[in-house]
Parts: sequence; C-alpha cells; structure tokens
Amino acid sequence: MTGPFVVIGGDAAGMSAASKARREDPDREIIVFERGDWVSYGACGLPYYVKGDIADLQDLVSVTPTEFREERNIDLRTNHEVLGINIETETVTVAGPDETFEQAYGDLLIGTGASAIVPPIDGIELPDIYTLHDMEDGKAIRERVLESESVQRAGIVGGGYVGIEMAEALKAQGVDVQIFEMLPQVLAPFGEAVGEAVAEELRAKDVNLHLETTVEGFEGDNSVTGVNTPDETVPVDFVLVGAGVSPNVALAEEAGIEIGSTGAIATDEYGHTSAENVYAAGDCVEMNHAVTGEPDHVPLALSANRAGRAIGQTVAGDPHPVGSIVGTAAVKAFDLEAARTGILDEERAKAAGFDPVTETITSRSRAGYYPNGKEITVTLVADKSSKQLLGGSIVGAEGVPKRVDTIATALHNGMTVPEFEELDLSYAPPFGPTWDPVLTAAKVLGGSFE
Amino acid sequence: MTGPFVVIGGDAAGMSAASKARREDPDREIIVFERGDWVSYGACGLPYYVKGDIADLQDLVSVTPTEFREERNIDLRTNHEVLGINIETETVTVAGPDETFEQAYGDLLIGTGASAIVPPIDGIELPDIYTLHDMEDGKAIRERVLESESVQRAGIVGGGYVGIEMAEALKAQGVDVQIFEMLPQVLAPFGEAVGEAVAEELRAKDVNLHLETTVEGFEGDNSVTGVNTPDETVPVDFVLVGAGVSPNVALAEEAGIEIGSTGAIATDEYGHTSAENVYAAGDCVEMNHAVTGEPDHVPLALSANRAGRAIGQTVAGDPHPVGSIVGTAAVKAFDLEAARTGILDEERAKAAGFDPVTETITSRSRAGYYPNGKEITVTLVADKSSKQLLGGSIVGAEGVPKRVDTIATALHNGMTVPEFEELDLSYAPPFGPTWDPVLTAAKVLGGSFE
Repeated sequence: MTGPFVVIGGDAAGMSAASKARREDPDREIIVFERGDWVSYGACGLPYYVKGDIADLQDLVSVTPTEFREERNIDLRTNHEVLGINIETETVTVAGPDETFEQAYGDLLIGTGASAIVPPIDGIELPDIYTLHDMEDGKAIRERVLESESVQRAGIVGGGYVGIEMAEALKAQGVDVQIFEMLPQVLAPFGEAVGEAVAEELRAKDVNLHLETTVEGFEGDNSVTGVNTPDETVPVDFVLVGAGVSPNVALAEEAGIEIGSTGAIATDEYGHTSAENVYAAGDCVEMNHAVTGEPDHVPLALSANRAGRAIGQTVAGDPHPVGSIVGTAAVKAFDLEAARTGILDEERAKAAGFDPVTETITSRSRAGYYPNGKEITVTLVADKSSKQLLGGSIVGAEGVPKRVDTIATALHNGMTVPEFEELDLSYAPPFGPTWDPVLTAAKVLGGSFE
Repeated sequence: MTGPFVVIGGDAAGMSAASKARREDPDREIIVFERGDWVSYGACGLPYYVKGDIADLQDLVSVTPTEFREERNIDLRTNHEVLGINIETETVTVAGPDETFEQAYGDLLIGTGASAIVPPIDGIELPDIYTLHDMEDGKAIRERVLESESVQRAGIVGGGYVGIEMAEALKAQGVDVQIFEMLPQVLAPFGEAVGEAVAEELRAKDVNLHLETTVEGFEGDNSVTGVNTPDETVPVDFVLVGAGVSPNVALAEEAGIEIGSTGAIATDEYGHTSAENVYAAGDCVEMNHAVTGEPDHVPLALSANRAGRAIGQTVAGDPHPVGSIVGTAAVKAFDLEAARTGILDEERAKAAGFDPVTETITSRSRAGYYPNGKEITVTLVADKSSKQLLGGSIVGAEGVPKRVDTIATALHNGMTVPEFEELDLSYAPPFGPTWDPVLTAAKVLGGSFE
C-alpha cells in the first residue's frame, strides 16, 4: 500500500496539491502540516486589507481549514511545524502543539514558501518596523495603522511591489509616505519606462520618493523615529521594509535535497526534487523560464497554484508537468497599472546569449477620438539576430495587464517580432486604437532590425 | 521605368498602402482615386459620433487629404470614381469631376471596401430608413436624430455590432429603441453566452428586443411609421438597418479578376489578385483564416490597415505578407464588453474538419475579495482529438477584449488546450483572480477531454 501524501506548508502550492490529489484519489491518506494558523490565503490581498478595501482578514481565505477537513477529507494540521525531513527513512519530524513525532510519507511535497528579507540595517529590530508577507504581518500592520491612529509618517524601504502597494494603502489611511529605493528607479524588474511612469504617479499622489538612496540605519529608542540616509535623517513613526523575499530552503537543504543556482529548491519538469518521492512547489522552488531555458526564482501565486495542482495529479498516478514560467507580473500603483513579462534587462538577456534590442512607444488605451482614453507605454525587447521576442512591459491608467498577457503568450510560443506584428488582435474604439499599442511597439521594434 | 502605383479607394487599406509605399520609395508616383470626399477615417467611431461622444465628424479622420498631399506627397484625388480596370492594358478608367480619363498603372491596389447590405424588404426605400457605413451615413443620421429632435421611436433591424452600438447611441439621445433580430440571439458570431449576456444588458437598459423576429415590411407614406413583423406593427419614426456588409467586387469581377468562395476578392499571401500587378486589400477581400486554413471574409479595420501596409511595402520592392486572420472582434454593448476570436460555431468547426467541444465558465474580473469585481464569462472551443484550441469568446463589464487577445495569440500559434492552461499570465488582485478566467475555462475544457 502506498504511504500517505504528506504536504509541508498549507498555502497555495500545498493546498492546491492536497486538493487535486484528493479529487484524483479519493482514498489516499493526505496530511498537510502547516506551522501557523492560516491556510490557503491570498497574501497578494494584504496591502488592500491594510488600505481598508477588504473588511476582514478572513475574506482573503479562499478555503477554510474546516472546509479542507470536512468537505475535502484532507487531514490538515495547523500549528504543526516540520522540523526535519529524512529522505532515507521517508519520514518527517513534526512538532505539534502537544508532542513531536515522526510521520512516514509515500510522497512528500515541500511547500515551505518564502520569507520576507530582513536586511541587516542598524536598528532593524526596533519596534514599529514591519515586513509584510503573511497574514499575521497584515493583521499587525493594520492594527497598528488603523486602530491606533498614531502612525503619521511612514518610511517604506524598497520600491518593489510591496512598497508601491503599501504606499497606496498608507496614503489611503492618511499617512505621510516616504519611499527609499537604492536603485535609480522603482519597480526595477519592470524596466525603465514603467519605473519612470510610476515614479511620476507616486509624486503626483504626494509620496516622497528617494531614489538611489541607501538606508543606513533606523533611529529610535522605544520605537523607530527616523530613517538614516547618507544625506539626512527622515523622521518617521512607522517603517515597512519591502526588500523582497528569499525561499525557505533550510528543511530541504538539511535533508540533502539539491538547491539550484538561484538559491531555491531545484526540481524537474514534474516538480520532483533530487530525492525520491519528494516534490517541491511554490515560492521555495526555482522553475524553468521559457525564454532563457534556465531556472529562475519568481515566487508568484499562479505558478505556485499551478505547480501544486500538477503535483497533486502526479502523485495520484497521472504525471502532469508543473509548467514553465515567463516571469509575468502585474501591479497597481495608485491610478496606474503596470505589468511585465519575459526578459527586459539587457544585461540579463546578454547573459542568456541574446543580443537584445529594446524599443519603447507611447500610444493610447482607446481610439484617439474616443473619450477618456489614456496614455499607454509599451516596451518590447527582442533578440537582434533571431528577432525572437524576449520580453515586454506596459504602463498606463487602463488596459495594461491583459495586454501583457498577449506578450506572455507570444513568449511561451517563441514568437518572433515579425510574427507578433501579424497577430489579429481585437479592436473597437472604446478598447484601443486600430493597431493595439503592443502591435505598434512590435512595428517599431521590427523597424529597428533593418 | 515603373509606372505609378495606383490605388482605388482612399480608406484604411488604400491610404495605408499609399503611405507605406511612399515611405519605402520616395520617388515613385502614387495616385489614389477616392470616389467620395472622405479618406482615412474611422468608420468604427460613427456610432459614438451619433451618440454625441465625438463632437465633430472631422475628429474621425486620422490623416487629412491635405496632409496626404502635402506631407506625404501622395497624389490623392477625391471625387474621382474608377469605372473600370483593364488588366490587359494595365489602365483604369476614371471619372473625375471634369472629365473621364484613362490612367496607366505599374501596380494597382483595389481597396473598394464593402457596402451596407440593403435587404429587399417591402418599404425599404421609405425616407428615414438608414444604414450606417460611411461618413455621409453618420452625418445624415446624426443630423436627423440630434438636430431635429423629432426622432422618438427607433427600430433597429439586426442585432449585430452596428445594431447594438446604435442602440446605445440612440438611447443616449433619449430615443426609444426596438431591436429586431431574425436569429434566436444577438451578436450571433460571438456565440450563445455572449448573446445571452448582451440581451440581458439590452433589456436592463430598456431596449425592446425582438428575437426570432423577421421584419416583413416597413409602413409609411412620406416617411417610415412602422415595422411589420409576423405578429404586429411596431410604430417607429426612424429605422436603422444593420444587416451586415457585402464586399464591393464589381470592378474586380468585371475586369476578370478571381472572386473567392466567400464572394470577396481572392488574393494570395501577398494580397496579389489573379491579375498581374493587381493587389486587393481591406473589406473587399477574403483572407486566410489561421485556424481553418481556408479563406474567410471578415471585414475589419486592423486587417485592412495591415494588408494595405504590407502591399505598400511589397510594391516598393520588399515583399511582405498580408498576414492571416483569426476573426477577432470586440464590441461595447452599453456597460458590457464582448469579444470573440477563432471558430465558435460548432457547425462551422465540423465543416472545417474538427470535432468541437465547447465549455463556458463564469469567473470574476478581479480577485474575489477585491472591491467592485464583475462577472466575466468565457467560452472556449477546442477540437476533441487534437485538443487544438479553435476559438473563444468573453463577455463582462471589464477586462474583456484584451483577454480575448490572449486567446487570439494562442490560435495564431496553434496551441492546444493543455498548452494554453500552462500560460504564465499576469495576476494581481485588482486585475483578476489568480487563475485568470481564460485559464479557468481552459482547465474546465481540458477536463472535458478525459
């Protein structure tokens, strides 16, 4: 008899896998160990919870523990932390609320996720300095910001997704916001054109933006009172550090499971790790990037869900690949929308063996004569010799992310720019110009090959 | 020396070709004969001109005759009608305002467009019965509706794009609107799910919708006063007939140029007709459908522009294919957006040799917990044996047309449903659920193969 399917971590990858395995195999024992209280929640919604757009933290939960247990017949154990994996004996060591025990597995999924990076900055341990990664973080920040009203001046370290989304959330709560970003632009993975447009939007919304500014320390005694930069000390009474995430690989590493070049767990096309019967998925793994053919660590919700689901199907006896990624991402920045896909960074493109050419164009979100159209700026990157499309980004006030999906679809298919130019895309005056902005960008980029 | 590049028809295809040819070949003589006054205009904007969203008819003109003549050095002759093409002598016979003359061509482009179909219904010749296809139609209708205020009850014959858009326009002008549609649904090419949603929206906006209702005649003496159906006479004082268009092929046909199976002019992949040095593009031609590999007549703006541009490049000595179509189209219906691409009709899919399977799902335009999300309904059609995606349609209050572009891009690449399911599409809570509705539809359709 096959041993149980054991899952470490009860969020996107883990619960998708458990649920899919249950649907495919009604009789197998499926055990999920989650070290916290929360499972299957939309962490991407946390900034909007802080903003007040979402009333209750519970609203971010897509399936409750009770539903998993009673409706899906999954043995979900919250407040159970896995302390170790033994790939020889095929067991995990689990610390439950009452005792520590060994659990044998037939198949194991490591879905340990990632953690917010806490950079080693002087004073980082001061009270009122937060990261935002899980439900407890969101709860603590909202309580601090909303319920006390003593937060008036927030410093945000890092101009990435979380920093930008939290700037919007905090401004909505009437808090003064300062963003400190080391690089010359915000949202670096989205490319320059997006960075510029979003910086302009942030300033228009009265966010103080400190670019090329390294935070050297935090001041304060009982709580944080200032952010030290090389030039000044900016007074704050709240700090949000959005310095990215790092994959939680300690368990895997200690078990002797292979860690990839990106620092995340290496897996094959079925999400299988270097250890027999051990899979990994979600924010703790690297995945194959369809453009470069190399592994990449892009911890996002869709690929975690998809890989979890695929592994659930695989362990049920019907092998299903976890899929490739092209690094597609979207973010709302106040009244702007930004999205990106593929390889935008020219250095990275060169490292992958390409000879990148980049073009940026500005067009409109609606036909020129149609009311209330907005500017929309498209960047496309392609390889000069093969003309293969490598990546794209878009920024504008409407119609952005789903236009990037067209580019992402092209990347998955290895389309060239001339092929992309020929796409029969939708047109009606309320929705875009006759030549969609992505086609205009392709025409301009196509011209630059000549 | 090469003879002049002569273009018949000064709209999307013709002016795109003339402009591109000029950019590629600064010295060649380029002559455009346009029988009317208007060139290079956005006919798709006409309903919004009637609605009052667009102040001036001139706003629909993207490039003026003066700009074509002076800035692009194109010999544009408005009010010049081509009466005949002689493919032996390589000349056209042209009736100008002053004289009729012969013009020799080195290359000829037929861009004669299409005309609104005027169905042979009793009383169709009565005053106050209109079609909406060109600028003069738009001008006449707006004058009639806006400037006289005597239009109170409009009958619209046909629930296609023009009918739906004009219903919105007329309602905005305070006119009572009745739509008469022979078929059991509006927007038949968009499939049932779109038809149902749009019918519901029309009724919610107080449009009287008569489905499966044949108009048998119009009543009236000095002007139309009623629409006769088998059941009743509906009183109206204005009628808009939106019965589709037919390609203007008479000139080509009389010249002995091959007409295709769809009734439009047949061309090869470069837009070349059966006659030497004679090209055709735009609403008068059929184009290759990438899904069926068969010719299809889908007269829309983008393919006209694209084919014109390609032919301009080809006649300048750098052959460029006109591209394939997948029949992508979008329409706004009051507060709904609808779009479609590929093959949705199962009978048509069967005729093209496929074994179609269709699934329709309803999801959300934003994450479930994010405020103000709307329902979004996706239909996908695939071939059962090959799992190749054949077509899709979407309807909802936001985020519709650009999601259809993802499907269109997949069709151009011949993707299967399992491949489509693996697309790394964008996700952020304000823009969609983690699994975009198109991916959810693909998952459900994928499941139906099993």
